[in-house]
Amino acid sequence: MAKEYKYYWEDFVPGSVQEVGGVEVTKEAIIEFARQYDPQPFHVDEEAARQSPYGGLIASGWHTCALAMRMICDAFMLEAASVGSPGIDNLRWLKPVRPGDVLRVRLTVLEARPLASKPGIGLVRHRWEVLNQNDEVVMEMEGAVMFRRRQMAS
Amino acid sequence: MAKEYKYYWEDFVPGSVQEVGGVEVTKEAIIEFARQYDPQPFHVDEEAARQSPYGGLIASGWHTCALAMRMICDAFMLEAASVGSPGIDNLRWLKPVRPGDVLRVRLTVLEARPLASKPGIGLVRHRWEVLNQNDEVVMEMEGAVMFRRRQMAS
Repeated sequence: MAKEYKYYWEDFVPGSVQEVGGVEVTKEAIIEFARQYDPQPFHVDEEAARQSPYGGLIASGWHTCALAMRMICDAFMLEAASVGSPGIDNLRWLKPVRPGDVLRVRLTVLEARPLASKPGIGLVRHRWEVLNQNDEVVMEMEGAVMFRRRQMAS
Repeated sequence: MAKEYKYYWEDFVPGSVQEVGGVEVTKEAIIEFARQYDPQPFHVDEEAARQSPYGGLIASGWHTCALAMRMICDAFMLEAASVGSPGIDNLRWLKPVRPGDVLRVRLTVLEARPLASKPGIGLVRHRWEVLNQNDEVVMEMEGAVMFRRRQMAS
């Protein structure tokens, strides 16, 4: 018997909006991620960052992506019948993410359509907007995820 | 006196191609990244992954992005006068990345143009293709980075 999930393709309705997350980005987390994956000076070295155009330490853009993904996992993705993502469009890093910022993700369903090539699977496209504590959009993108369809899931 | 870098905007010539990196993706690294940022079952749980459409553990797509960034940092970005990235277009996760895969990045310079809005800065757009040990492209995207211009860098 197939595992039962809380959310299937049918649960993502175009036009619907939700906000998820609320996570503080610490200086230590910024440096730890960047040391491993993106050790540019303005991500790992406070003094070099002060002298950069950013005037201080900023998070790697990939760190912001990873944090957004985690917030989405915790909000609903781990209870959804996801079968993975084909990709991302129009990702923009609009403002720096700095130590102490508190991030959340505003998700808007842009499109939900069956996939002709994969029976029983539908594609959902979301706009992701990552906002900080001042309601500034620091990052935006359009993400696609494939989900199983409810009526064909058993 | 401004820091001297090895690479400036002028060093990225449209049409030029280079391959960088060569890093093995271990099962432990896949699980460690995903536990922190993308704990979907097919990224963190070997048994659940076996029963998923992927038939086994696969790396989070964000992990592949982070690994590609690290390979680019090690190859030249840490010696380049980068002032950050505005974003990414057309990111596609084309094939699963599995434990034991060895990844490298093929970078093609698509475009290099001065930025009218930022004197002394130029934009470079690269195609990133992440290849595995079988020369399959597992991920591709178009990335933009802003670099200082050499003649105006002092």
